[in-house]
Amino acid sequence: MRAIDVIAAKRDREEVAPDALREFVLGYARDEVADYQMAAFLMAGYLNGFSRAEAVALTDAMLASGERLDLARLSGPTVDKHSTGGVGDGTTLVVAPLAAELGMQVVKLSGRGLGHTGGTLDKLDAIPGMRTELSREELVAQVERIGLAVCAQTADLVPADKAMYALRDVTATVDDIALIASSVMSKKLAGGADAILLDVKVGSGAFMKEPARARELAELCVALGEDGGKATAALITDMSQPLAVAVGNATEVREAIEVLRGERSGRFADLCVALAGHMAALCGVAADPREGGERARRALAGGAALERFGRFVEAQGGDRRIVEDLTLLPQAPVVHHVRAGRDAVLASVDAEAIGRAAARVGAGRRRKEEAIDLAVGVDVDVRIGDAVGADTVVARVLAGDEDAARAAGQAVLDALTWSDGPVEPPPLVHAVIGL
Amino acid sequence: MRAIDVIAAKRDREEVAPDALREFVLGYARDEVADYQMAAFLMAGYLNGFSRAEAVALTDAMLASGERLDLARLSGPTVDKHSTGGVGDGTTLVVAPLAAELGMQVVKLSGRGLGHTGGTLDKLDAIPGMRTELSREELVAQVERIGLAVCAQTADLVPADKAMYALRDVTATVDDIALIASSVMSKKLAGGADAILLDVKVGSGAFMKEPARARELAELCVALGEDGGKATAALITDMSQPLAVAVGNATEVREAIEVLRGERSGRFADLCVALAGHMAALCGVAADPREGGERARRALAGGAALERFGRFVEAQGGDRRIVEDLTLLPQAPVVHHVRAGRDAVLASVDAEAIGRAAARVGAGRRRKEEAIDLAVGVDVDVRIGDAVGADTVVARVLAGDEDAARAAGQAVLDALTWSDGPVEPPPLVHAVIGL
Repeated sequence: MRAIDVIAAKRDREEVAPDALREFVLGYARDEVADYQMAAFLMAGYLNGFSRAEAVALTDAMLASGERLDLARLSGPTVDKHSTGGVGDGTTLVVAPLAAELGMQVVKLSGRGLGHTGGTLDKLDAIPGMRTELSREELVAQVERIGLAVCAQTADLVPADKAMYALRDVTATVDDIALIASSVMSKKLAGGADAILLDVKVGSGAFMKEPARARELAELCVALGEDGGKATAALITDMSQPLAVAVGNATEVREAIEVLRGERSGRFADLCVALAGHMAALCGVAADPREGGERARRALAGGAALERFGRFVEAQGGDRRIVEDLTLLPQAPVVHHVRAGRDAVLASVDAEAIGRAAARVGAGRRRKEEAIDLAVGVDVDVRIGDAVGADTVVARVLAGDEDAARAAGQAVLDALTWSDGPVEPPPLVHAVIGL
Repeated sequence: MRAIDVIAAKRDREEVAPDALREFVLGYARDEVADYQMAAFLMAGYLNGFSRAEAVALTDAMLASGERLDLARLSGPTVDKHSTGGVGDGTTLVVAPLAAELGMQVVKLSGRGLGHTGGTLDKLDAIPGMRTELSREELVAQVERIGLAVCAQTADLVPADKAMYALRDVTATVDDIALIASSVMSKKLAGGADAILLDVKVGSGAFMKEPARARELAELCVALGEDGGKATAALITDMSQPLAVAVGNATEVREAIEVLRGERSGRFADLCVALAGHMAALCGVAADPREGGERARRALAGGAALERFGRFVEAQGGDRRIVEDLTLLPQAPVVHHVRAGRDAVLASVDAEAIGRAAARVGAGRRRKEEAIDLAVGVDVDVRIGDAVGADTVVARVLAGDEDAARAAGQAVLDALTWSDGPVEPPPLVHAVIGL
């Protein structure tokens, strides 16, 4: 395998043989293929496309570049989930304890937020004392004991993916279906769970703005998961507006706990139930997603999921009292109310702009090394199809100071488009792939 | 200018603004834009193409990355030539003294050979004592005194081109018309001459195998030269077989001196005369290329060009006696005769294979850092359309040992295709652009 031959083949729209592609990626992980050669290859692939066989080979190679979690000691069934990233998307906080309650073992390796999207690890940081760096032994023991663990991916899993992702980020080659799918699925396969449920977001707050592209990504991810020997399915879900009311870190934890308490209904709770139901069907612990979903609703209503969440927080060193006392979460000094200023119906939302507004007020980061403020964020109270009056509070900005709050409030208002007549709310789940 | 925006624009087939492109290239030369970002950009450009405006901006930026030779002290007219690279293409050795003889001042910055093509500096190394590293002061003073100098490009001219070329070489992005043209023309514009004549080769031994691509390259080079304020023209010339009989270093010098002595006619001599004639017209020292060519022929026949060549050799520290005594050039220990082995007419030649055979016997290098043997090479005595008998010597391999000689001899024979009937020789000059 000569690196330049692999690059030239991709450049000339030839199919790159699996062995050559594998050697190229592993060579890159070993520093034998240079950054600039990988960059040229990635751009050639971005422009000329990758075949399904090439996506499989890329995934296999990234997986082979590092370790895999060995979950053989767990009684199972083990399950993992992955969201492609959205705004107000804290489903893991609810779905993981729900799935544990339904009889699955959830081994969830999570990441941090970047740009307009949040990350589960940042949200967990808002819980006082919570640790997200677990050793493998801690992770496996905790999952066996309480049914779930959510922690940071360790550096020894898929190092080739880590390096390639960093390179894509600075060479304008992020937004490619095959590269996204192989990156996601190599990480999920390395995570070792028996079953993988993907939540592929589509809409204004998602990386995939077009339903056709979201479907393409979901189908490829499912194929890669099944090629890797795992039960895999994907839900294509709506991100044409923030999923939860809360967009931030402490505020998303607060809303998740309210859902776990059975106090809050709505789209966020509904999607958590749907995800848990589909996970249960995928793992064979429910007859179908509907039955799984019904059991999930009962686990929310009866307090079992909240109890499970408390054990999870405690197991990872967090202050379990937060399940009763939400004031233990970081509180923003300023709460700025944003009013509609009109009589109208919410027609559409630029959810990415909402995510950026929350990030700008301090809840997110533009670059990996930036610090974030766990207390701040934006709560958006209206949903597409809702009618408002001039004084209706459409959002509350949680901020460090008044100026930042007002600026974010304006950005949120600017992200909302209004209609005079009625508007049909978008569906929550657009499609299910692989189940 | 953000590097990633320039890459994304090129990726998305948008026109990159000249200022942004300039900053990107200059940033690369200053190590502010990373190798991997330039590599992604080059691949995006390779696949999506560069507009003429982008080629102009690339050329300007590479030029602005370094110094330019200042030839204002020369009485002029100053002229430079460039060949896009071929096999048995030692025209500079003859054309430079001819042009000086016709009243021009030749400032020729040359390179070394790579792959199947030779380089003028390597050929000059075959002349005992010859120096090709001249200071700017030496260069200018020599040109004013004797009308010509041929030396190595210094590192301070077009450093961005040097870095980009090295990167293209390892990222499969060499073969792009706009990148080739901007690389060639930035170097030529940095060379500072008033007029630039390009010899764009086309055929089996050239980088451009297709006449249409050669014409595209020639037209773009001429446009870039004129955009840079220089009188520029291009000849598209035949490289469907080696230009000279000799392919190597000492052997090409030997043939060039024979031409300068007026002892050798043929395609190589004819092209030298044509190039000198077109240079003269371009510089306004002849009414037209034909008149310039006639004066060039007289300079060859009357010994003036040979005398000029001798002064050139002496000025750069070489042994001037080589113009009389060719045995002062390095001699290969083995001369292996290759016979046709058939009664036939030469129909076509894989000139690149001939170049590779000469390189393999030691006359060329596959990588920049490899050493070469100045004494060795291949002399190919037949031309397309020539009839041969079984015993006709079609080539002589000059080698270090018998085994290498025999292998190269077989490679040369394999590069020749034969016909039973008559074959029309290809034209020598396919087209003239810009004159």
